[in-house]
Amino acid sequence: VLYLKRRYGFSAAHRLFNASFDDAKNWKVFEKCNNPNGHGHNYELELILSGPLDADSGMVVNILDLDQIVEEQLIEHVDHKHLNLDVPFLQGINPTAENLAIAFYERLHPLIPGKAVLVGVRLQESKNNLAEYYGQAPAVPLVLQTS
Amino acid sequence: VLYLKRRYGFSAAHRLFNASFDDAKNWKVFEKCNNPNGHGHNYELELILSGPLDADSGMVVNILDLDQIVEEQLIEHVDHKHLNLDVPFLQGINPTAENLAIAFYERLHPLIPGKAVLVGVRLQESKNNLAEYYGQAPAVPLVLQTS
Amino acid sequence: VLYLKRRYGFSAAHRLFNASFDDAKNWKVFEKCNNPNGHGHNYELELILSGPLDADSGMVVNILDLDQIVEEQLIEHVDHKHLNLDVPFLQGINPTAENLAIAFYERLHPLIPGKAVLVGVRLQESKNNLAEYYGQAPAVPLVLQTS
Amino acid sequence: VLYLKRRYGFSAAHRLFNASFDDAKNWKVFEKCNNPNGHGHNYELELILSGPLDADSGMVVNILDLDQIVEEQLIEHVDHKHLNLDVPFLQGINPTAENLAIAFYERLHPLIPGKAVLVGVRLQESKNNLAEYYGQAPAVPLVLQTS
Amino acid sequence: VLYLKRRYGFSAAHRLFNASFDDAKNWKVFEKCNNPNGHGHNYELELILSGPLDADSGMVVNILDLDQIVEEQLIEHVDHKHLNLDVPFLQGINPTAENLAIAFYERLHPLIPGKAVLVGVRLQESKNNLAEYYGQAPAVPLVLQTS
Amino acid sequence: VLYLKRRYGFSAAHRLFNASFDDAKNWKVFEKCNNPNGHGHNYELELILSGPLDADSGMVVNILDLDQIVEEQLIEHVDHKHLNLDVPFLQGINPTAENLAIAFYERLHPLIPGKAVLVGVRLQESKNNLAEYYGQAPAVPLVLQTS
Repeated sequence: VLYLKRRYGFSAAHRLFNASFDDAKNWKVFEKCNNPNGHGHNYELELILSGPLDADSGMVVNILDLDQIVEEQLIEHVDHKHLNLDVPFLQGINPTAENLAIAFYERLHPLIPGKAVLVGVRLQESKNNLAEYYGQAPAVPLVLQTS
Repeated sequence: VLYLKRRYGFSAAHRLFNASFDDAKNWKVFEKCNNPNGHGHNYELELILSGPLDADSGMVVNILDLDQIVEEQLIEHVDHKHLNLDVPFLQGINPTAENLAIAFYERLHPLIPGKAVLVGVRLQESKNNLAEYYGQAPAVPLVLQTS
Repeated sequence: VLYLKRRYGFSAAHRLFNASFDDAKNWKVFEKCNNPNGHGHNYELELILSGPLDADSGMVVNILDLDQIVEEQLIEHVDHKHLNLDVPFLQGINPTAENLAIAFYERLHPLIPGKAVLVGVRLQESKNNLAEYYGQAPAVPLVLQTS
Repeated sequence: VLYLKRRYGFSAAHRLFNASFDDAKNWKVFEKCNNPNGHGHNYELELILSGPLDADSGMVVNILDLDQIVEEQLIEHVDHKHLNLDVPFLQGINPTAENLAIAFYERLHPLIPGKAVLVGVRLQESKNNLAEYYGQAPAVPLVLQTS
Repeated sequence: VLYLKRRYGFSAAHRLFNASFDDAKNWKVFEKCNNPNGHGHNYELELILSGPLDADSGMVVNILDLDQIVEEQLIEHVDHKHLNLDVPFLQGINPTAENLAIAFYERLHPLIPGKAVLVGVRLQESKNNLAEYYGQAPAVPLVLQTS
Repeated sequence: VLYLKRRYGFSAAHRLFNASFDDAKNWKVFEKCNNPNGHGHNYELELILSGPLDADSGMVVNILDLDQIVEEQLIEHVDHKHLNLDVPFLQGINPTAENLAIAFYERLHPLIPGKAVLVGVRLQESKNNLAEYYGQAPAVPLVLQTS
């Protein structure tokens, strides 16, 4: 069981908001995170990849290839953006750390080059808060049974 | 498989000590951590929660509710305290990182609000030393949690 | 020469923008930081205070008093806000790290309790970028000349 | 399920290189990491141990014993060395983060004192890149299956 | 103007306390830091040295010599200790960050080897609180040290 | 007094070595840092700039311009290199942190765009060791006289 973890950063604004709530309920549930003009974070994204060790390169995945894909397909779309307003693939999604981790996993999972698999996505939005999503049906044996 | 991780900090004194050992054996096993007047740490606590994504809030757990419970039920009891002397629910426990992680898990597990489950507790006592406890019969699948 | 440094954090959105520039020039000067819907950061603020050591308390400034003032007079006004839109005392200021450091210094300088003086303000907006402002006429020697 | 994680650091030079590749292919696969004279990193190593809690000590493993073994058997051999040239047990291994994590696991796994088991090795070579290896047949359950 | 900065760490307990105050005043001034059984921190100490560049070694000070002195003369005396009770050279000193920085500067200033001078001491006791002391009559020019 | 600080990173190998010493003296002075095949670090470089606030941009220096210059003129020359062997402008320099800070300052000082001045260079080579160089005749009033 071998993992390669790779980290990326981006800075973005967002607003927690549920369109089906009225203003009072939005404030009650999300409090200051519901500020109408938004607030922001320096997000730290970690991709968790697994796969067979490539004997020639000694790597799970070619990092240079991976970086190019992640930069083009994800980071450029979210860095220095407002996540509620500027990102087509996040339209209609309330940008909690949990929802963003799921959305990033879904977006990147099909794009990983070579034999590596995107096992999970870890998204830290502040020093004290982070979400991790490992997909619904992991393609690699994340889970070894006890007995 | 979705996790929300939330971090808290506290500063406390402690002394590693086994009342059934004599002084010589206490020193042999715990060395400088056995200093009679104690020493201390800036502890970093991470709670690892899992559960269904609440569709309305886009969260695993309401962080504001969680924070209130953890502050009142744990942090206020250990912050700026001597863990061997000042904390009723730690009486008789040798406060190693391992034992503290277990004790904090046991204390907080029944108190998590909503549908989230406390999967594990990670307690870092110094830059180079930390313990993690995931309970004896986790209700949700565990992935080995790193960093 | 004795300093006490105290750190605070807040998360906010902002947009670099000069109202006297047209859109093309705003983009040329500020590039992605000029995104109309804004982006955001986890800001880290450090206050640098100096003053005589209070013999009774062994402190330059009472931290508990300082924290209350800084929270009420600054952090509550900027945390989880859009710095261009939501903060009266920043109205008309292009919120670069430099301008924010100056504005925060000006706001907090008159409010420091006791005999301590706010020597400077350090504002980090991302891992790689930070500004520091030490006022125009420091009340304490920043530096002692060699000879 | 209880883990003790312990961190060590070392500074080393290395060069990514496959002896069966010609120069052009080595450059194509490894790019700047293939620089003939090498480059280097401050490596951060985390050992992930599990095992029964020792009732007398309140620990999974005696950290002082562990530190002595890891320092003597690993850190002294790699710290301030060139990993391709100076380390007998790494001879012939292309020192990617993945290969180093595997090699360190293999070297340390038989050496852990007491009843603890080395579950995994986490090796961070830079802020954004790290590998983790959990062995081929873990002696303790890494994860418990859901249903 | 050339500086060499060197960092050390230690873990200790302390209690803020003024023997000339009654209990009520001690609590009023120091609040939870006055807890009778103490609390603790992972302290981070940075020594700020200046001096001519030694042409032979390319260094301001031989770090190996410096480390030996600092470990023997300071760290061994405070690490895993209670600063109010276990440290002869701190007797009678209320161990605020400010007072500790001054005491460590006074203790180490005469002990620096070679031509280097101890310009200042920076002591961080928690993520958000630190003190710096630069002596009363620095022999070399001071620049306000940040980060 | 306004500063803008900007951080860059690079990974490199180096060997502490004085060509006028014999092997025994090189080892005595530099010990493990003298390992013939070198070792390496993840270096963190901070540039400390000062200057008038540009009223139009609200900045001391245009960061995008600065980054391009620093990347092209410095980082590309040292990143993933052996500092003793691969870097023409470091030829003959014993690559201690002190010497590197001086060399980087000398190289970058004439290249800063606009009205900003490179006041100093801070180079961290490991968690516990860093050097800072502020030039011999600062062009801005770093130094305010005491009396």
